[in-house]
Amino acid sequence: MKWPQGVSSAATASGIKSEGADLGLMVFDAPATYAGVFTTNAAAAAPVIWSRSRIGRDIRALVANSGNANACTGRDGVAAVQEESTAIAAILGCSPDDVVVASTGPIGVKLPIDKIVGNLGGMKANLSDDPEPFARSLMTTDTYPKLAMAGMGEGTVLGVAKGAAMIAPNMATMLAFIVTDVACPQDRLQTLLAEAVDASFNRISVDACESTNDSVMCFSTGRTDGDLSRLEGALDEVCASLAEQIVRDAEGGTKLMRIEVRGAADTAAAVALGKAVAASDLWRCAVAGEDPNWGRVLSAMGSCDRRLEMGDVEVSIGSELMFLRGEPVGRTEIAAKVMSFDEFSLVCVVGDGPGHAQVLAADLTTDYVRFNSEITT
Amino acid sequence: MKWPQGVSSAATASGIKSEGADLGLMVFDAPATYAGVFTTNAAAAAPVIWSRSRIGRDIRALVANSGNANACTGRDGVAAVQEESTAIAAILGCSPDDVVVASTGPIGVKLPIDKIVGNLGGMKANLSDDPEPFARSLMTTDTYPKLAMAGMGEGTVLGVAKGAAMIAPNMATMLAFIVTDVACPQDRLQTLLAEAVDASFNRISVDACESTNDSVMCFSTGRTDGDLSRLEGALDEVCASLAEQIVRDAEGGTKLMRIEVRGAADTAAAVALGKAVAASDLWRCAVAGEDPNWGRVLSAMGSCDRRLEMGDVEVSIGSELMFLRGEPVGRTEIAAKVMSFDEFSLVCVVGDGPGHAQVLAADLTTDYVRFNSEITT
Repeated sequence: MKWPQGVSSAATASGIKSEGADLGLMVFDAPATYAGVFTTNAAAAAPVIWSRSRIGRDIRALVANSGNANACTGRDGVAAVQEESTAIAAILGCSPDDVVVASTGPIGVKLPIDKIVGNLGGMKANLSDDPEPFARSLMTTDTYPKLAMAGMGEGTVLGVAKGAAMIAPNMATMLAFIVTDVACPQDRLQTLLAEAVDASFNRISVDACESTNDSVMCFSTGRTDGDLSRLEGALDEVCASLAEQIVRDAEGGTKLMRIEVRGAADTAAAVALGKAVAASDLWRCAVAGEDPNWGRVLSAMGSCDRRLEMGDVEVSIGSELMFLRGEPVGRTEIAAKVMSFDEFSLVCVVGDGPGHAQVLAADLTTDYVRFNSEITT
Repeated sequence: MKWPQGVSSAATASGIKSEGADLGLMVFDAPATYAGVFTTNAAAAAPVIWSRSRIGRDIRALVANSGNANACTGRDGVAAVQEESTAIAAILGCSPDDVVVASTGPIGVKLPIDKIVGNLGGMKANLSDDPEPFARSLMTTDTYPKLAMAGMGEGTVLGVAKGAAMIAPNMATMLAFIVTDVACPQDRLQTLLAEAVDASFNRISVDACESTNDSVMCFSTGRTDGDLSRLEGALDEVCASLAEQIVRDAEGGTKLMRIEVRGAADTAAAVALGKAVAASDLWRCAVAGEDPNWGRVLSAMGSCDRRLEMGDVEVSIGSELMFLRGEPVGRTEIAAKVMSFDEFSLVCVVGDGPGHAQVLAADLTTDYVRFNSEITT
């Protein structure tokens, strides 16, 4: 894969992490139209606050690091963002206000800003059209870089992302950067991005923890004229692919669950029920154990919507109906077989309303606990 | 410990579980005043629906089993509750409507009602004033029986409980049965119980999963005249002790966290913030690893209250201040030492409001995942 026209990137190992690439730079040949969707966590990190406030401006560069979230870092954190923006602006000959930044990693640790600033000049000399090194530099506990591309005849949409844990309820610790060469007005790009995020990153869950740093940014270099409804489709496709890749690479996760909720009052209700199931530690443990313990699904939905009528509810694991309008039915051995695969569907019908949604989730394993019990401070 | 005057109990191994006591019977010499607080889960089990509807009546007997939740069991589940109530009513010479029931264990499995009915006669012959066998018969993954007593001069309050997992956000899979000999009008007993539950069982969390079966029932045999404000204190004390015992015996749990939230707008806001921290898988993993990763605490609170001002927030682990009004402070090695004990306090100041609350929670360990990944269906 190659970046669309008008953008290039570089990556390096700056030493923020003990090993591996941890710093990425993306540079636009000319100011790019910029849209962004960010965490709504009140503990939002300094880079989130900075980059959120740049919406409406055209952007010349993005600096992203892994290995440190620069979150809950107080005045030092704000100063660090200012410093990295100023440093790359000086190199590119633009204003620091034309720069956006992103960070991911442990919270509450001072960002070693000198390691970032000292590398930007050399990175500029190594810019290329290959997005993979940049995608790799974002990785924390990810086991592979995440890239997705959708062509649309006249132009291209290409996105990179990092995920792994803290992916919920609203696109928590994940970063995604999407670039298109198709020209699009800023307000339209913001709307298209928000809708694409809502249907993708906002419908995945790893551990129901929402991060201080999640950011999805979208840039248009405007090099190509394209149909905006086709851009919408391509953007949706790229976001959906990246979101699914994130769940597949969930920390410690061994399975991808597609939780389909149907018959809810509206889409929001369907999403809420799906996320409640996705967030149930008990059900997620059962999935890890390939145990079709569908009672935990009902229990999770019943504590999400306390007016749910069990007589209206159906639960299927794969195509095996396990609970039919108030009564347990179904063959446990068939459901267990379905759950033995890397990926399976859980279908929950909750009534006869028009609301339906799919939420993607991962299982909860001892490896997840091990990863997250290790000393990071 | 002995039951207060006017009540006795028995327990047996009926075979619902593969081994150990799993059936308990409590009999009142004369109809006892009855109050109850139950799960609000829409998937509430048949015994919950039955016992909830008995509120307002005086009660002659309680039948409780472990090893099977009789939840999501449809018409069979309703029939089973009817059968067990009718069976003990026939033995005691009362109406089935004078009987309450409770079940705990796996969801969605048909209750083997013959094992219960066949044992009630023999259990009646073995009634005694020792509450411990009854408390043991409630145990599922509990490692010890839970009992608490508070004397109040003229009378006694004694309670038994079972817990272990699925303990949140509103007293999920837990059963507690509390008996006093102090006379109390039903409406007053209901109010006292609801308040005691709100300040105890509703402020604990094991895995943020709410069960289909949680029930707290309180009975007054009326044998003693006592001061009702002292009864209130004794009831609060018993509920608080049982709630803490449940968290200490959390599935796989190795530590008890006392999460104190201060300075919130009101008590409800303080409880919500405390429960958000208690529900964070990431923070609970850090606790298991004795890692003072306080950023996960801020992140959990910030996704609970999106208007939280970090400049107003303080977080302390034990007495070590880690985050002070927007800035990271504190010594990691001191906080890690605090977390190395079986029990520690996490103090979160979130503003200068009058709302404060304490929420008790357990850590998330690989043992929890292992327990809950085992095949139970």
